[in-house]
Amino acid sequence: MGSPFDVPVAELRRRTSLKWHTYPQDVLPAFVAEMDVRPLDAVVSAVHGALLSGDTGYEAGPASPRGTAYAEAFADFASRHHGWDVPVDRTRLVPDVMLGAVEVIRLVSAPGDAVVINPPVYPPFRSFLEHAGRRVVTAPLTPAGRLDLDALDRAFAGARAYLLCHPHNPTGTLHTADELRAVGDLATRHGVRVVADEIHAPLFVGDEAFVPTTTVIPDAIALHSASKAFNLAGLKTAVAVPGPAADDLTHLPEIVGHGVSHVASIAHQAAYRHGHAWLADVRASIRRHQQMVDDALTERLPSARWRRPEATYFAWLDVRDTPAVAGSGTDPARLLLHRGRLAVNPGPTFGDEGAGHVRLNLATSPEILADALDRLVTTLAARA
Amino acid sequence: MGSPFDVPVAELRRRTSLKWHTYPQDVLPAFVAEMDVRPLDAVVSAVHGALLSGDTGYEAGPASPRGTAYAEAFADFASRHHGWDVPVDRTRLVPDVMLGAVEVIRLVSAPGDAVVINPPVYPPFRSFLEHAGRRVVTAPLTPAGRLDLDALDRAFAGARAYLLCHPHNPTGTLHTADELRAVGDLATRHGVRVVADEIHAPLFVGDEAFVPTTTVIPDAIALHSASKAFNLAGLKTAVAVPGPAADDLTHLPEIVGHGVSHVASIAHQAAYRHGHAWLADVRASIRRHQQMVDDALTERLPSARWRRPEATYFAWLDVRDTPAVAGSGTDPARLLLHRGRLAVNPGPTFGDEGAGHVRLNLATSPEILADALDRLVTTLAARA
Ligand SMILES: Cc1ncc(COP(=O)(O)O)c(C=O)c1O
Ligand SMILES: Cc1ncc(COP(=O)(O)O)c(C=O)c1O
Repeated sequence: MGSPFDVPVAELRRRTSLKWHTYPQDVLPAFVAEMDVRPLDAVVSAVHGALLSGDTGYEAGPASPRGTAYAEAFADFASRHHGWDVPVDRTRLVPDVMLGAVEVIRLVSAPGDAVVINPPVYPPFRSFLEHAGRRVVTAPLTPAGRLDLDALDRAFAGARAYLLCHPHNPTGTLHTADELRAVGDLATRHGVRVVADEIHAPLFVGDEAFVPTTTVIPDAIALHSASKAFNLAGLKTAVAVPGPAADDLTHLPEIVGHGVSHVASIAHQAAYRHGHAWLADVRASIRRHQQMVDDALTERLPSARWRRPEATYFAWLDVRDTPAVAGSGTDPARLLLHRGRLAVNPGPTFGDEGAGHVRLNLATSPEILADALDRLVTTLAARA
Repeated sequence: MGSPFDVPVAELRRRTSLKWHTYPQDVLPAFVAEMDVRPLDAVVSAVHGALLSGDTGYEAGPASPRGTAYAEAFADFASRHHGWDVPVDRTRLVPDVMLGAVEVIRLVSAPGDAVVINPPVYPPFRSFLEHAGRRVVTAPLTPAGRLDLDALDRAFAGARAYLLCHPHNPTGTLHTADELRAVGDLATRHGVRVVADEIHAPLFVGDEAFVPTTTVIPDAIALHSASKAFNLAGLKTAVAVPGPAADDLTHLPEIVGHGVSHVASIAHQAAYRHGHAWLADVRASIRRHQQMVDDALTERLPSARWRRPEATYFAWLDVRDTPAVAGSGTDPARLLLHRGRLAVNPGPTFGDEGAGHVRLNLATSPEILADALDRLVTTLAARA
């Protein structure tokens, strides 16, 4: 078997999801967190089996003997990949990571309360929190893409909760056990509760392992899902996992589980149980693709800066000093779209701190990535 | 082809969803809105096609040429089945009916505002509204299961919104054009906005047609989905349809569309486009099943009362005066579960007005329904 990213463009264009149907055909899409990947056979069969047998009703609830099937599959996966002992019986299914994160935030804070985030960060963090009536307070990452403990200390004063992104989107930062421990100390000191969005956890691709937040911060609550690592954004569901000292989920209203998709649950269970080899191939490919980025920038666009991410399939590129951008005042994503016919995620959508940056999606074939890098380098190397 | 409900019990037990996995094996499940139905082939193939081709990313947004695919399929269906001209470009996709209804309620009311519902009604109406910080005010249906205009007039005073269930769950009432017109007049007079949950609309089974609320109340907003009529609760998505005078959906935050499942959208589109014959068979079966209920009660439990529903696959049975219930003070669902080994939805979960009632699910094979009716009649006919 070749790489799971070995999918021809013609086939990708037949997909009907967002990535290949937002821009005109001559624009190469390297935005949005979808992977140009072959599906995992086990997921295809599990979903087909469910549909064939008419198993399209509601996900069984916590009262049912089948109510923990998702959490058990996730726990087996988490034990194997993260050495993490997930408390299956204390978990709760939620419709997806963002809806789940917001409901957990509602549990640990009140309307009007301040909630801290670390820009540049996944844009829905801000919009979902604001929609839930929370006040967003920022503690930007350091220029090196790490958690800034001083900034967190300041932001935590007067805040009630902290929505941590671990691994961090867009930078791909994996927070270390030491960093998490320091965050936990600060949070305890300020009475701030930590909610960790860990959707990218299976996608660690560097030398460091993923450290689950709740293993370091006992009253944290984490959100997990197979939807990102296994490209199942279109079949969403997620699980909230409390730390040993967090008993809030017992207060999560029953209706929060109402939106959970049973078929998505079946798909994710298959991914968690049978996706180990597929995921290993995906991670190996992402590492090779990171090397392609490194080579292209080093050789052809040395004025661009990036750090090789420890996780995620993104490249977060600081292109402020490239010839096309420097002094032009134009958002580089706009230049890339209009001149390079390449669609990337604009840095400023992740927060003001993202100015001069773009997020490039590496989860595609080497051929498509080479084309994307070529468009990027050619466009940005040309003086404005 | 036989009835779509021709699914043997052994096959139903292999399904892993809620209905057949909540109670011990000797309990016959006739609760929860899942159908014991064969899946629609077109849905099975569409979903399989999507999975095989890896089409499991995000649903294309309103900006994309593909962003209206769901609404177009729904509009064709609505035109054919309801003679309704759906304004495709003004619709918005939402993750499911309840999440959509709540987001629309958030648009037309503020926290603390009163929202009116008509008990006995689908239990999540109350819990979702309360979770959204709204004050629930009730205008119970009349004893005949119709909208009570006097009660609505009183309830609308001081209220901001009205969550209408049309067709009504659990009674199966189809509101008439005259009733809707009167509701619209009252709502206008009191400054109340009408939000109509029309999820059961395709399941009209009597002589009356379904009248879309927004065709009578121009500033109403309706929620539709293929999930109920086509048994796709496990693959949820829904669409919000504004009346000609409702422009609120332009203010619906973009993130509300975040939770939409692309694969569910593909499944629903197939159902709306290719489910006409399947749906006709389902409706014909439900009519026959209603007759079985009528016969069983008339012959063997004359003290039970019910009205043949104009829509839905439920039977809402008033069993207060049956020998087992009369004077016993016990909830009939509990008697049925413990003595009859039959699981139905307890009337009181739909509101206090549901005391002495049970909701029976008719969406099953004639054999299973006969067994359920036998358990019901035998249990309730026996003096306590
Ligand atoms: C950090 C992060 N959280 C959440 C999501 C989306 O998850 P869901 O669709 O389950 O809300 C993404 C998607 O890219 C993400 O990057
Ligand atoms: C009236 C009504 N609304 C909504 C729903 C559920 O819809 P969804 O799962 O899309 O929220 C049901 C399910 O039975 C229902 O009867």
